[in-house]
Amino acid sequence: MAYSVAVAGASGYAGGELLRLLAGHPEFDVRTVTANSNAGARLLDVQPHLRSLAHLTLVETTPETLSGHDIVFLALPHGKSGELTSHLPADTLVVDCGADHRLVSEEDWAAFYGGDYYGAWAYGVPELPLAGGAAGQKQRDRLVGARRIAAPGCNASTVSLALAPGIRAGVIEAADIVAVLAVGPSGAGKSLTNANLASEILGSANPYAIGGVHRHIPEIAQNLRWAGAVAPTISFTPVIVPMSRGILATSTARIVPGTSAAAVRAAWEEAYANEPFVQVLPAGQFPRTADVLGANTALIGLAVDEAAGRVVTVTAVDNLAKGTAGAAIQSANIALGLPETSGLSVNGVAP
Amino acid sequence: MAYSVAVAGASGYAGGELLRLLAGHPEFDVRTVTANSNAGARLLDVQPHLRSLAHLTLVETTPETLSGHDIVFLALPHGKSGELTSHLPADTLVVDCGADHRLVSEEDWAAFYGGDYYGAWAYGVPELPLAGGAAGQKQRDRLVGARRIAAPGCNASTVSLALAPGIRAGVIEAADIVAVLAVGPSGAGKSLTNANLASEILGSANPYAIGGVHRHIPEIAQNLRWAGAVAPTISFTPVIVPMSRGILATSTARIVPGTSAAAVRAAWEEAYANEPFVQVLPAGQFPRTADVLGANTALIGLAVDEAAGRVVTVTAVDNLAKGTAGAAIQSANIALGLPETSGLSVNGVAP
Amino acid sequence: MAYSVAVAGASGYAGGELLRLLAGHPEFDVRTVTANSNAGARLLDVQPHLRSLAHLTLVETTPETLSGHDIVFLALPHGKSGELTSHLPADTLVVDCGADHRLVSEEDWAAFYGGDYYGAWAYGVPELPLAGGAAGQKQRDRLVGARRIAAPGCNASTVSLALAPGIRAGVIEAADIVAVLAVGPSGAGKSLTNANLASEILGSANPYAIGGVHRHIPEIAQNLRWAGAVAPTISFTPVIVPMSRGILATSTARIVPGTSAAAVRAAWEEAYANEPFVQVLPAGQFPRTADVLGANTALIGLAVDEAAGRVVTVTAVDNLAKGTAGAAIQSANIALGLPETSGLSVNGVAP
Amino acid sequence: MAYSVAVAGASGYAGGELLRLLAGHPEFDVRTVTANSNAGARLLDVQPHLRSLAHLTLVETTPETLSGHDIVFLALPHGKSGELTSHLPADTLVVDCGADHRLVSEEDWAAFYGGDYYGAWAYGVPELPLAGGAAGQKQRDRLVGARRIAAPGCNASTVSLALAPGIRAGVIEAADIVAVLAVGPSGAGKSLTNANLASEILGSANPYAIGGVHRHIPEIAQNLRWAGAVAPTISFTPVIVPMSRGILATSTARIVPGTSAAAVRAAWEEAYANEPFVQVLPAGQFPRTADVLGANTALIGLAVDEAAGRVVTVTAVDNLAKGTAGAAIQSANIALGLPETSGLSVNGVAP
Repeated sequence: MAYSVAVAGASGYAGGELLRLLAGHPEFDVRTVTANSNAGARLLDVQPHLRSLAHLTLVETTPETLSGHDIVFLALPHGKSGELTSHLPADTLVVDCGADHRLVSEEDWAAFYGGDYYGAWAYGVPELPLAGGAAGQKQRDRLVGARRIAAPGCNASTVSLALAPGIRAGVIEAADIVAVLAVGPSGAGKSLTNANLASEILGSANPYAIGGVHRHIPEIAQNLRWAGAVAPTISFTPVIVPMSRGILATSTARIVPGTSAAAVRAAWEEAYANEPFVQVLPAGQFPRTADVLGANTALIGLAVDEAAGRVVTVTAVDNLAKGTAGAAIQSANIALGLPETSGLSVNGVAP
Repeated sequence: MAYSVAVAGASGYAGGELLRLLAGHPEFDVRTVTANSNAGARLLDVQPHLRSLAHLTLVETTPETLSGHDIVFLALPHGKSGELTSHLPADTLVVDCGADHRLVSEEDWAAFYGGDYYGAWAYGVPELPLAGGAAGQKQRDRLVGARRIAAPGCNASTVSLALAPGIRAGVIEAADIVAVLAVGPSGAGKSLTNANLASEILGSANPYAIGGVHRHIPEIAQNLRWAGAVAPTISFTPVIVPMSRGILATSTARIVPGTSAAAVRAAWEEAYANEPFVQVLPAGQFPRTADVLGANTALIGLAVDEAAGRVVTVTAVDNLAKGTAGAAIQSANIALGLPETSGLSVNGVAP
Repeated sequence: MAYSVAVAGASGYAGGELLRLLAGHPEFDVRTVTANSNAGARLLDVQPHLRSLAHLTLVETTPETLSGHDIVFLALPHGKSGELTSHLPADTLVVDCGADHRLVSEEDWAAFYGGDYYGAWAYGVPELPLAGGAAGQKQRDRLVGARRIAAPGCNASTVSLALAPGIRAGVIEAADIVAVLAVGPSGAGKSLTNANLASEILGSANPYAIGGVHRHIPEIAQNLRWAGAVAPTISFTPVIVPMSRGILATSTARIVPGTSAAAVRAAWEEAYANEPFVQVLPAGQFPRTADVLGANTALIGLAVDEAAGRVVTVTAVDNLAKGTAGAAIQSANIALGLPETSGLSVNGVAP
Repeated sequence: MAYSVAVAGASGYAGGELLRLLAGHPEFDVRTVTANSNAGARLLDVQPHLRSLAHLTLVETTPETLSGHDIVFLALPHGKSGELTSHLPADTLVVDCGADHRLVSEEDWAAFYGGDYYGAWAYGVPELPLAGGAAGQKQRDRLVGARRIAAPGCNASTVSLALAPGIRAGVIEAADIVAVLAVGPSGAGKSLTNANLASEILGSANPYAIGGVHRHIPEIAQNLRWAGAVAPTISFTPVIVPMSRGILATSTARIVPGTSAAAVRAAWEEAYANEPFVQVLPAGQFPRTADVLGANTALIGLAVDEAAGRVVTVTAVDNLAKGTAGAAIQSANIALGLPETSGLSVNGVAP
């Protein structure tokens, strides 16, 4: 039996990736695709790579067009889902790929986003360890049966996955985390800004949101606190590089003095031992973003730098797949009790 | 009056960039270009972009072919210059773009390079501040009149320039530095390895030399010690991204508690106030590698992240220009008493 | 019931793409992967993006390791399959992604490849029209029940698909075809040559095999003759551009005088009316290679340039997918009587 | 003695490249830079790579701000220079990088551009041969002493340079020319369109203006007629590829029956024998765009494809340098009687 699905914001990059993945999901049936300025166009005119969805036409994003589906995926600009979703039935599964419902702290929301705060929904990077409960608890537990889900931010889930195991196991310090990310420009969506022009990005590495202002910082801190961190501090710097997709996050943290290199590695390997979508590479191996292109996979390479006193993790994620659309579908699978891997590939498209 | 010049290793990327810059230098006249497997070929067959040097033919790299010039630039693989240069006259200016003569510590050499150690030469990133002497001393002082010069490593000079002012001024700590660099593959030269293939690098971000093993780490530490650091520790991670040239280094350090943001910024602005080739951008601005493509310029953007307790510097350098060949020519200008900017452009080729 | 499958040459790009697609095929079960210098390695060490095949280890490419499977896919260098496959049972389905068995003319083989000629196998770009028989005949008819199949060359199938409908319908001339292709470097495989280095290809467009020497020329001519051309002549120029995958072929031919623009377009639309994998875009639309990344789709845009007297077709294909591995699997589906689309996606991974 | 210079449209890519080259010109002194929406900004805020011009501030583009200079370079959108320049003194040298004054046929203007037609100015690709006069005449002759110059279009000059020698020498036919160009997106300027976004262009090849509608077609025809063509027809297809700059034009034409391959090659070699900026590569060599990055050089590789009956030329040009800004400065040098090569480099920035 297929669930009926609507995708709001279907003309953007996140919406397009949702549709690409949904088209291959055995249980989900996309019935409605909505857009704003592109409403009225054939989906194929806006997303010419989605050949199997040639029959769909974009309609306006309204409570009416979204109603009557089992599942609604939202890929809207930040600040657009709060009002809209208040009109949807409570038993509709709504998965929001935007930031509106991720943060539990209204203060964080005000400091990093601003505007009306609509409150947090069930948030989950399924594989992230949770402190304070039974051993082995993870964020996925919070998604089971949920009907309002805030899918995580791409950079936030990448850095959180990279460091939470060490926090949870008590082998690294949450103070003085440093993360620097090479990211593709698709994370910025289709905004028509000078900085997003191809000529600006080709052949160049361009930093942005430097010095503690990036909006994913409070989300990472929230995840790490849930993993047991007391007062995490995170220096976070994203650098746009000339690849359309991908995040390669170098996330480092100080090792708790006296911890052996083996104990450090063991924390990660145990945390993700049975996870299909989060894999720790053998010692000496590190991932490339091409390895996860289009896949719902996060690959983590890890080294202990004894001279620097830091663990260095390098994590590769496709920002649109595992970082956004794949995460959203994985969440929906969990919420509905489907196999968590339904419709999601672990294999990247390389080279 | 023109100085006669030989370039050894003229068929590689560093050699090619030396020649491109030398071709525009008003005082230098390239007479001899040498190579190894390409000896006998026209230069233009190997470096087809160097149209103004169509008259040159590659000869073998030997003491004989290099002798009889005022200046010899070496762009050889590591380990190749020590023996070779012992045969060159003491009054010939030899500038080595390789690593053989950079490190003053034989122990560091053994740990990070290995093989015979031929001793350190005059080393200098001209703009780097020096501690312990008169105010305002810089590494350029060591190059004046020198006849054996070790040009700095590209990543090393980038990270050193990024952080030395704060060390020298006492506003940042040398312990727990973290640097992550987006770098182009030309830094790896023309080595025929799988990792250097275009298909591996296009559309992907690929880390390498992770966890404290990169060879530029001891060179950065050496520079920072010369700037006043006592026991620097550096977590250093380079990430190859799909641009042929360029380094964008995100280099962060803990701010000494109690230091104001203004004092932090002032340290950098004062250190580089009169430097043509190292420029600190206004608050809120950060460089892109395209801004320095082909130029002898290092651009530094700086932010104080008070929540993280760190200064974040983002530094853009062209690894082949200011990072290697430009640095070598700048050193030669200083050694010979020429205007330091001779033959070197501050303007990048963008977009 | 699953067919057992072996892939020879599993460490290259074509082999990797075969495995990526086979991993998602509902009827095929990869049991054996073979390599040459990489024999003995875990598949994941060589193809780190193929996470679902973590259990496989590369073995040597020999008749023994390949025997005992229902299907053997060969992704070997040209000239390597002839001898090897003579040792495989006649009822094993062997699909060769190399060139050894594509050309029916030994003279063409000698002129463009050289070395031993092992004879032509069933060759088929399924969607290509065939002249001389019943209306609507296509190359797929030749693949039904075949047990030795030569999968087409990537550039050859792209240009052939682009022009064969016009030849078959008699609306374009086969003399004086001109095709210029923007291609990604993965088509050259993992050869360690200077021309394949990332630094050579990033930020540059590099032509190769110019002036009538490219090996796909006789294959295109063969396809066009089968579509009804008498004496095709083809000016064919490939240009490597900085994208890992993809072919964008601009293929032009003179319109037969007196033919209306509508009749030209109709020839293409009719030829591919019911083809899932070859789609003609509406007038005014043209494809991009990103639209077909990872997909088994060829997209064709077409314009009639009346001033120039030529039809201009622009065709996008993923050289590794529809161009090689997808074509091979599609052929196997046809040979075995499976649904032709099994395990093959029409949707590209964009952006 | 320095000429005073104003650059109108200094915030765009063509304007930026003009300034980069002018900054190195020994006789030209940039006094005024103008813009539209960026008026009032420091030049460096808009063109951060032009470090040597840090003293300049953008002012509005008006007859008043442009008056009082010896030379005015215009890098304005098409249609903007006609009215503006009517207000400038007749003895000011005005070089227009836009299309407004290139076409001598008002009918061509109306068909391909539309809007008011302001008449043709002295147009010149200096190296292009002219028919009908003394042997050896070239377009540069028309620029000597001119005070109103229309700099050529980038694609137009590339294809014209590629084929005019064969037309002039009578060895190729002007009917049925086919040109396909791989071009970087900087040619489209900073227009904020979806098609110009980095995510659309990275990893993809995207055609545009297909089927006889590109605006450079009548300009090529004009150049070829001036070289002796009677009724040229040109199939012209540009393909945007992921490099910021560069044009690699594959331009082919039918060889006049009975012409020897040697005679074909000789036509090109003789036409450009003494040209510093247009160079014909030896047989078997072909250029890459990286070879001419930032240079005022056009490199032409040529092959005779006897089977196809066509000459195939591959020409590399930097669209912003030799294609636009370099061409404009070269024209100004000629007009003023300066050495033609002043301020212009023949060497590309590679890799």
